[in-house]
Amino acid sequence: MSIKVLVNGAKGKMGSETLKAVRADNDLELVGQTDIGDDLSSEIKKTKADVVVDFTQPDHVMRNIERIIENGAHAVIGTTGIKENQLSIIEKLCKEYKVNCLIAPNFAIGAILMMKFSQEAAKYMPSVEIIELHHDKKLDKPSGTAIKTAQMMSNLKNIPIHSVRLPGFVAHQEVIFGGLGQTLTIRHDTINRESFMPGVILAIKKIQKLPGLTYGLEKII
Amino acid sequence: MSIKVLVNGAKGKMGSETLKAVRADNDLELVGQTDIGDDLSSEIKKTKADVVVDFTQPDHVMRNIERIIENGAHAVIGTTGIKENQLSIIEKLCKEYKVNCLIAPNFAIGAILMMKFSQEAAKYMPSVEIIELHHDKKLDKPSGTAIKTAQMMSNLKNIPIHSVRLPGFVAHQEVIFGGLGQTLTIRHDTINRESFMPGVILAIKKIQKLPGLTYGLEKII
Amino acid sequence: MSIKVLVNGAKGKMGSETLKAVRADNDLELVGQTDIGDDLSSEIKKTKADVVVDFTQPDHVMRNIERIIENGAHAVIGTTGIKENQLSIIEKLCKEYKVNCLIAPNFAIGAILMMKFSQEAAKYMPSVEIIELHHDKKLDKPSGTAIKTAQMMSNLKNIPIHSVRLPGFVAHQEVIFGGLGQTLTIRHDTINRESFMPGVILAIKKIQKLPGLTYGLEKII
Amino acid sequence: MSIKVLVNGAKGKMGSETLKAVRADNDLELVGQTDIGDDLSSEIKKTKADVVVDFTQPDHVMRNIERIIENGAHAVIGTTGIKENQLSIIEKLCKEYKVNCLIAPNFAIGAILMMKFSQEAAKYMPSVEIIELHHDKKLDKPSGTAIKTAQMMSNLKNIPIHSVRLPGFVAHQEVIFGGLGQTLTIRHDTINRESFMPGVILAIKKIQKLPGLTYGLEKII
Repeated sequence: MSIKVLVNGAKGKMGSETLKAVRADNDLELVGQTDIGDDLSSEIKKTKADVVVDFTQPDHVMRNIERIIENGAHAVIGTTGIKENQLSIIEKLCKEYKVNCLIAPNFAIGAILMMKFSQEAAKYMPSVEIIELHHDKKLDKPSGTAIKTAQMMSNLKNIPIHSVRLPGFVAHQEVIFGGLGQTLTIRHDTINRESFMPGVILAIKKIQKLPGLTYGLEKII
Repeated sequence: MSIKVLVNGAKGKMGSETLKAVRADNDLELVGQTDIGDDLSSEIKKTKADVVVDFTQPDHVMRNIERIIENGAHAVIGTTGIKENQLSIIEKLCKEYKVNCLIAPNFAIGAILMMKFSQEAAKYMPSVEIIELHHDKKLDKPSGTAIKTAQMMSNLKNIPIHSVRLPGFVAHQEVIFGGLGQTLTIRHDTINRESFMPGVILAIKKIQKLPGLTYGLEKII
Repeated sequence: MSIKVLVNGAKGKMGSETLKAVRADNDLELVGQTDIGDDLSSEIKKTKADVVVDFTQPDHVMRNIERIIENGAHAVIGTTGIKENQLSIIEKLCKEYKVNCLIAPNFAIGAILMMKFSQEAAKYMPSVEIIELHHDKKLDKPSGTAIKTAQMMSNLKNIPIHSVRLPGFVAHQEVIFGGLGQTLTIRHDTINRESFMPGVILAIKKIQKLPGLTYGLEKII
Repeated sequence: MSIKVLVNGAKGKMGSETLKAVRADNDLELVGQTDIGDDLSSEIKKTKADVVVDFTQPDHVMRNIERIIENGAHAVIGTTGIKENQLSIIEKLCKEYKVNCLIAPNFAIGAILMMKFSQEAAKYMPSVEIIELHHDKKLDKPSGTAIKTAQMMSNLKNIPIHSVRLPGFVAHQEVIFGGLGQTLTIRHDTINRESFMPGVILAIKKIQKLPGLTYGLEKII
């Protein structure tokens, strides 16, 4: 039996890419598509969606998560801008409504590797800075990936994060480690949204078996 | 007849490299070496230096320049930290005492090219950011080279400059231009102070023929 | 009166982007679109095209150019793979048939700047290497842009060009200059074909006033 | 009791840096220093060296290793150019003479991390190329580090390695992974030989407890 998927933020760039990817997958059934302004709650009820994928905007995401969970659907969240203190609220909601939620600041496998390697390198080379570079239409900064990367190097305090916003970029991040007479740089470049789709589809398929809140795609890779 | 050179900041890294370079050049005669704490004025008088090279510290440089000029020597200034509004003061002093002063935030030919190219590129790709990366012992930020580069793209306002300070770096700068579907990056990497010496020696030899204040090595290349 | 444009290679990636750009421009009229297998000559006659834009394949491009010119249309050629010794043949054809031809290995303004700056930098820093990086579907190597860049630094002999072919790249090039204690790197990154369209449209509009053969977009910028 | 150390290649750049580092360490005693032309065997006998560090040249290294081992000293080898089929010969010699040998193409911790991360990333992103960049005085190519990195990604066949040799570089390597819509780049930059010394000293101190042949500093980190 296929998984019923509703895409919220379907007219956005990531959302429309997700529509294509869901339609192309035989194990998934696209049952709905909504955007800001639509009544997400009643749409979830009507379509009986198993999973809702959310690619909307930082200032809408918490409200969307609440609606998804309260209507009994699992949530796969790609929207950034969720604050650390909101995670425990989401976790409680998941328990209360017995559904699962996966939040991933980045669905690209290369980005996950960058974060894991940065976590490892920080043990040996503690002087580090993160520079993330995105197109000038990106609303939030620093990027969710940069915040996540810094959190994963939690043995270090006050890691500087610098955000570059310029046309001609898509989504890029550089983690620079400095040591005695040497530097180590780990860089991830994304050139289009295709790069996220294998990760999004994987999350949709695994979410039913991931109890409560899961933060970061690296937990399921 | 050889040019009499006094090096101020002779025990510093750039200063000691300059000592070597001056000694190695047949047209130059090293007549003195001073550091913070020494009496620069009486040393200039005593040695009858034609040119004083200054590689000291941002908070000493203006006072040093005044002393050099008031004692009738030409000044070649590599110390950074001079503010834009101080340039007119220096210019007046030069006229009053009939000596010349060259201030260069960067003596490396590659850096000069980076600045010139950035000035040119800014005409076609107006979205730009400067990232400069230096070792963690560098006192001032942003670097003089970054400030100079931004000034040379003066048709643009508010160019962001970001400073990275980490061990393992020497002196590096990246100027990133963003445009429709593309970016252009001009990067200069310096691995040791040798890279500055051809520029320093050139400045010492040319300063007598450069009336008043000259700002930037690109003016003489 | 609008310029009649025929796009050859219309189903290809660059060709279809060109279709869009020509349609969007009020001064241009799209009169035809052809691909390998179509009879280009009779299509030019039928449509009375003023200008034919060619984005096909290296092993077809010379034959296409001959047909375009012999049928009295101006040629704007973005296909790479034209050899240096073929340029004089093209020049003769242009004279014989009194039409013009512009060949540009790269239509992106950032790439043109990279080439111009490389030409200038090579005068001061003669040790240089070109690395070009493209997606793994690119047929020819080295890229036309790399060859062109090397030719523009013609005071130097035997400039090494290295080609990287990997998925995840679009079109990128790095020109690295090495000097005493320093390196200067000029890098151009293209993330999508949009970046070429302002250059292609400019070429279509200017070709009627560019007698004979013009090689390189930098000649008209 | 301190460890008796003899440095072979003491007048070379790495060798002289090693002299300084050995002298500065209280647990080590510098008992000898030799170069090409000296009688290494008799010097080992005379000084009763426990460990010989070798930083010489690719075409001398095998002969040096034989002499060190046959004279009963442990060998720490930083010279590159040892071929894969020579490793079994060295291993046999170690067993026969009951001494140990550590060969490390690179002693910098950042380089070790780059190799480890590349090995891990290759499992997820199998399209990869190595570019190593060194000063123009480096005799061998590709560098030992590049060869070692490729060997560690042994699940992949025919990994391209490109070598850049230009003035202004010290020792740099970039491992580029390409995937769907994305690239991951791991880069290590060395600016001076200081960066190797912590690794060299660690090897000298640990070699007595590392039976037989150890290839790569990552085995002891």
